[in-house]
Amino acid sequence: MVRALIRRVLGRQENDQSTPQLELPPTDSRDRARSMVMGLQDEICAGLEALDGEGRFQEESWVRPEGGGGRSRVMREGRVFEQGGVNFSEVQGNELPPSILKQRPEAKGHPWFATGTSMVLHPRNPYIPTVHLNYRYFEAGPVWWFGGGADLTPYYPFLDDARHFHRTHQQACNSVHPNLHKVFKPWCDEYFYLKHRNETRGVGGIFYDYQDSRGTLYKGQDPTGAAAKVSSELGATPLSWEQLFSLGQANGRAFLPSYAPIVEKRHATSYGDRERDFQLYRRGRYVEFNLVWDRGTIFGLQTNGRTESILMSLPPLVRWEYGYTAEAGSREALLTDLFTTPQDWLGDPSLEERCRPHQAIN
Amino acid sequence: MVRALIRRVLGRQENDQSTPQLELPPTDSRDRARSMVMGLQDEICAGLEALDGEGRFQEESWVRPEGGGGRSRVMREGRVFEQGGVNFSEVQGNELPPSILKQRPEAKGHPWFATGTSMVLHPRNPYIPTVHLNYRYFEAGPVWWFGGGADLTPYYPFLDDARHFHRTHQQACNSVHPNLHKVFKPWCDEYFYLKHRNETRGVGGIFYDYQDSRGTLYKGQDPTGAAAKVSSELGATPLSWEQLFSLGQANGRAFLPSYAPIVEKRHATSYGDRERDFQLYRRGRYVEFNLVWDRGTIFGLQTNGRTESILMSLPPLVRWEYGYTAEAGSREALLTDLFTTPQDWLGDPSLEERCRPHQAIN
Repeated sequence: MVRALIRRVLGRQENDQSTPQLELPPTDSRDRARSMVMGLQDEICAGLEALDGEGRFQEESWVRPEGGGGRSRVMREGRVFEQGGVNFSEVQGNELPPSILKQRPEAKGHPWFATGTSMVLHPRNPYIPTVHLNYRYFEAGPVWWFGGGADLTPYYPFLDDARHFHRTHQQACNSVHPNLHKVFKPWCDEYFYLKHRNETRGVGGIFYDYQDSRGTLYKGQDPTGAAAKVSSELGATPLSWEQLFSLGQANGRAFLPSYAPIVEKRHATSYGDRERDFQLYRRGRYVEFNLVWDRGTIFGLQTNGRTESILMSLPPLVRWEYGYTAEAGSREALLTDLFTTPQDWLGDPSLEERCRPHQAIN
Repeated sequence: MVRALIRRVLGRQENDQSTPQLELPPTDSRDRARSMVMGLQDEICAGLEALDGEGRFQEESWVRPEGGGGRSRVMREGRVFEQGGVNFSEVQGNELPPSILKQRPEAKGHPWFATGTSMVLHPRNPYIPTVHLNYRYFEAGPVWWFGGGADLTPYYPFLDDARHFHRTHQQACNSVHPNLHKVFKPWCDEYFYLKHRNETRGVGGIFYDYQDSRGTLYKGQDPTGAAAKVSSELGATPLSWEQLFSLGQANGRAFLPSYAPIVEKRHATSYGDRERDFQLYRRGRYVEFNLVWDRGTIFGLQTNGRTESILMSLPPLVRWEYGYTAEAGSREALLTDLFTTPQDWLGDPSLEERCRPHQAIN
């Protein structure tokens, strides 16, 4: 009924405007998006349990009083993973908050629907990076969009790990359209940035939001940044609902191949107090990013989200140290200098020169 | 020259308006405020070194490119204090940020000056509470104000400790005017509140801001809260610049007497992994408050403050645990239920009944 009305209204607008029209989602869009992200949660949890070998996810299902609910899965004290959380949620509300309406004014006054999966893994061994992913789908009145991304946060620098993670996500993006990774890679560097430290959260990966069929790729906050520039040079890249659905699915399925080989390569490397201390210290940056800068976390906490599920991303043990600076020439300094600054991981051969003296290539 | 002009303008306004006029600060107001807060930093650091017995503060002085600077003092790995930081700063700028201008529109377009001291102590022994204080003075064009406060965050509940801390600050406030503590105590409960946990940061203390000679005591964010209600019932309480200066000084000097006896009483109490684990877990709440809700911290981080000095407040070691709840009937549950909810610590005799079964009185 409502959808029929929207179809009529959108049909009329087609005659009035020359901007690209928003395609209508399939009639079973919500079911398909929900199944896709739930499927990702299942596949990823199964893969991570196999990878860990000992740890098992514990599941808690929850209901949101305002509408919807979710299932949160946590692994603690595994062989590889000190803590890992993989969430699924499906939530509804009467009107989106102002922060999102600013980006999507057409959604004003309309009820909304959102479903997504998100994950953060905190491995025990400091040679294995922390990793995050999130894939989500929104509908609100006449508009809909996909968002998502994945980013890698190493504690010790290995060029090959960064390249493998980026290459795997580049391939997943390219399977949908060759323009996407060119914009989503710099957008990731821009989003996962700690302004108060002048550091990225790690080596990045991909990030995208507000993707619909109208084809503007970059929809972030910095109109003068690298992502905006590339997006503008590439021009409109209209993709169908089906293609954007495939984008989330392809990247979600790329996660295990992007990360499992790194775990397998690093988990047997022995480490001591120095490496553990540095890992705990750098985990502080993860907390700082999530609580000070991450729009999703702050939005959730300030609007009665499920606190335990939102803060599942925080590390199990963290250290802060006033005035710490890494010893000049150390691997810790290489991590801090090179691996928390945007790099052209796949295209810049000079990175090898900088990593070689520290045995930080493979 | 500028001050003479302001005097003329303010003099004229006196004839036009019936609202209480803003008194002019003494001509040496900035020097006196600076000396007062620097003196507090010195007295407090000396007292804390004596209390710790082993730890010593290391000092770093720094200059702010936009104007001003400070001296940061940190004690690490003391006998009592796992980490403690006491900052002094004096900063200037061309125009206050919008968040403050909203409260003080008369400051718009004027250069500003601010000086203050702030402190956070993280004791090692879980039976000793974490504590924070901050006293500050602002001038901006025609306006000036004092702000400050101190709040106590216990890990294990002791009614007498909470009462002693509150009583000492009540006496300091009363030495200036009997209305003050009645408003600043509930304002503290309101300010140090973690909405996403529905918990106060601890047992509170006092908090005040934007205090000038015009006499409105409560100037916080919640017009329907307890502090606003009491303030409105008490009516205007005009205090001179000298009285408000004395308020900061009296409360700053009340800190050591409010806290040292608690340290002396608790520091020899032995504890095990259970108490240490709970302390590290609760320290996570301190991080959450400071990074998500504390306006001062967020403002500093988002506007190029000195990151290391701002984040000196974060604990040296912190733990997060998904889904933790304190065992029913335990001291940890009493802390979580009673000691993170606003209480009439000094006036409510029923608190003893609730604390007695847990040996949580003295």
